[in-house]
Amino acid sequence: MDTSSSRPVVELAGGVGGAKLAHGLQALLGADLTVIVNTADDLERHGLVIWPDHDTVMYTLAGLDDRERGWGLAGETWNVIEQLAVYGEETWFRLGDRDIATHIVRTARLRRGERPTDVARHLQRSLGVAATILPMTDEEVRTELRTDEPDTDGGWIAFQEYFVHRHQAPTVHEVRFCGASAAVPTSEVREAIAAAGAIVIAPSNPIVSIGPILAVPGIREAVEAARARGVPVVAVSGIVAGRALKGPADRMLVSLGHESSALGVARLYAGLADVFVLDTVDADLAPAIEALGMRVAITNTIMSDDASRARLARDVLDLT
Amino acid sequence: MDTSSSRPVVELAGGVGGAKLAHGLQALLGADLTVIVNTADDLERHGLVIWPDHDTVMYTLAGLDDRERGWGLAGETWNVIEQLAVYGEETWFRLGDRDIATHIVRTARLRRGERPTDVARHLQRSLGVAATILPMTDEEVRTELRTDEPDTDGGWIAFQEYFVHRHQAPTVHEVRFCGASAAVPTSEVREAIAAAGAIVIAPSNPIVSIGPILAVPGIREAVEAARARGVPVVAVSGIVAGRALKGPADRMLVSLGHESSALGVARLYAGLADVFVLDTVDADLAPAIEALGMRVAITNTIMSDDASRARLARDVLDLT
Repeated sequence: MDTSSSRPVVELAGGVGGAKLAHGLQALLGADLTVIVNTADDLERHGLVIWPDHDTVMYTLAGLDDRERGWGLAGETWNVIEQLAVYGEETWFRLGDRDIATHIVRTARLRRGERPTDVARHLQRSLGVAATILPMTDEEVRTELRTDEPDTDGGWIAFQEYFVHRHQAPTVHEVRFCGASAAVPTSEVREAIAAAGAIVIAPSNPIVSIGPILAVPGIREAVEAARARGVPVVAVSGIVAGRALKGPADRMLVSLGHESSALGVARLYAGLADVFVLDTVDADLAPAIEALGMRVAITNTIMSDDASRARLARDVLDLT
Repeated sequence: MDTSSSRPVVELAGGVGGAKLAHGLQALLGADLTVIVNTADDLERHGLVIWPDHDTVMYTLAGLDDRERGWGLAGETWNVIEQLAVYGEETWFRLGDRDIATHIVRTARLRRGERPTDVARHLQRSLGVAATILPMTDEEVRTELRTDEPDTDGGWIAFQEYFVHRHQAPTVHEVRFCGASAAVPTSEVREAIAAAGAIVIAPSNPIVSIGPILAVPGIREAVEAARARGVPVVAVSGIVAGRALKGPADRMLVSLGHESSALGVARLYAGLADVFVLDTVDADLAPAIEALGMRVAITNTIMSDDASRARLARDVLDLT
């Protein structure tokens, strides 16, 4: 693909991995990038509505992300959460002071009746984000996981309870996306996919980051329809050398009966993606993935800095 | 009065002046002090419910008030409000980071359906306040002021719009307490007044701090009934040498047709208070105030430090 042209690109993304690739793509595409972001990890804490994946992508695209900590805003302070603890609030979900401002503004606008998509746009514009980040839906969808934890409701716990509070330690036996079947993609999501010149599936957790996006009725179908029109769909593996680059995707794949490998990820995207981007260390998996009916591209997928983010983004766009 | 006994004392109070005297009273009375606080200055900003007078009294009684700035918490930081400005929020009502935690907890509990009185108690207990601070009512009462400001709705503006945003510059021609006639005192307020061994009217603004408390149907009557039972009611002048110790009470008294003096204040409390505490510099006003049917006590009413707060508190209790 000639990346100097302005063919719009859509990325389906979860949090950190999706944000890094989005940052590289935005460097090349600017406003021609639309990120459709997972909302099933969203939660309410202390009466504030929090969108972890959206905000990770937003802060990253705004250049405000804390790269050492790996989440939240750089230069963050923690005075509000310390005081919340004084009032007896459970503070295992750490919120920085400036991050809390995001949640305050979001919550106020949502309570006034604004659509999540419009609220998201206001936040992004305020931070000077060039790309557009779209919630996958304006309806509430919530990921719940069934684990062995004895103190839970039939074993089911909310995503952030598993991810943050229990440090991803419980074994995940089943995943459900509550509300997904009743959700609809927004007109913005439908139009972005319809107008896309290429669709990128980020190296995010295929089960709990990309999974909820595809579980919203109409989104998978729209991606399939785009592909049928000849729009390239490129998936990037978030599993490298059998390990998740970040998060529990590797263990989750295994406990849910999949293989913790790029091949295991590719199997989940078979029939959806037509190009699969594999890290060079996993080159030996290429034949098995090609056997699934996908073209394989092999490159360095580790995004450790701006340069490697942009390089992977260029590699991905060159495939489309 | 023998202050070593445990006769409960009720103080009617607004913000800073009421908080200082409450601090002195609490040092002598501990849990035997109940402060009934004005709620008509309360407001919502950024979707957060803010109770300026309650929080001023609470922070002061907790020993957390910033004495140099004169409002808010000591050692406060301002990261949230700076970020709120990035999102285009109007930030003329300055909120510190730790203060915002108070508003977050309060807002969340109110939205869950908790009574304001119970929410207040939770906040106070969390900060280790010995006394009890009661909102004058659990219903919404809002002070509005009619001024000459041309860009307002028939001249009417909300209290904090006048007090903070317009720096108390507009001339106040009329005051109304929206919602007051439909409000009722809580059972806690009624019981506190019924059980009081003495009632103190703080040196707060008589129009917009004490005024709204007395405008809640039943509160003035309860104070009058207590007085009829022989419970002493002591009012402390917040006007000294014709000037308000803090805030716009002096100008407001004049523009509303009263006199900007301790005598002007005393006239507003005639028939309600039976003892009026006058600063030594205003001793010459004693005969005119006595002519209103009040006993006059003369002392130093300036509360510049802990010692002078406690001294005035003791002087007030000695009158009861």
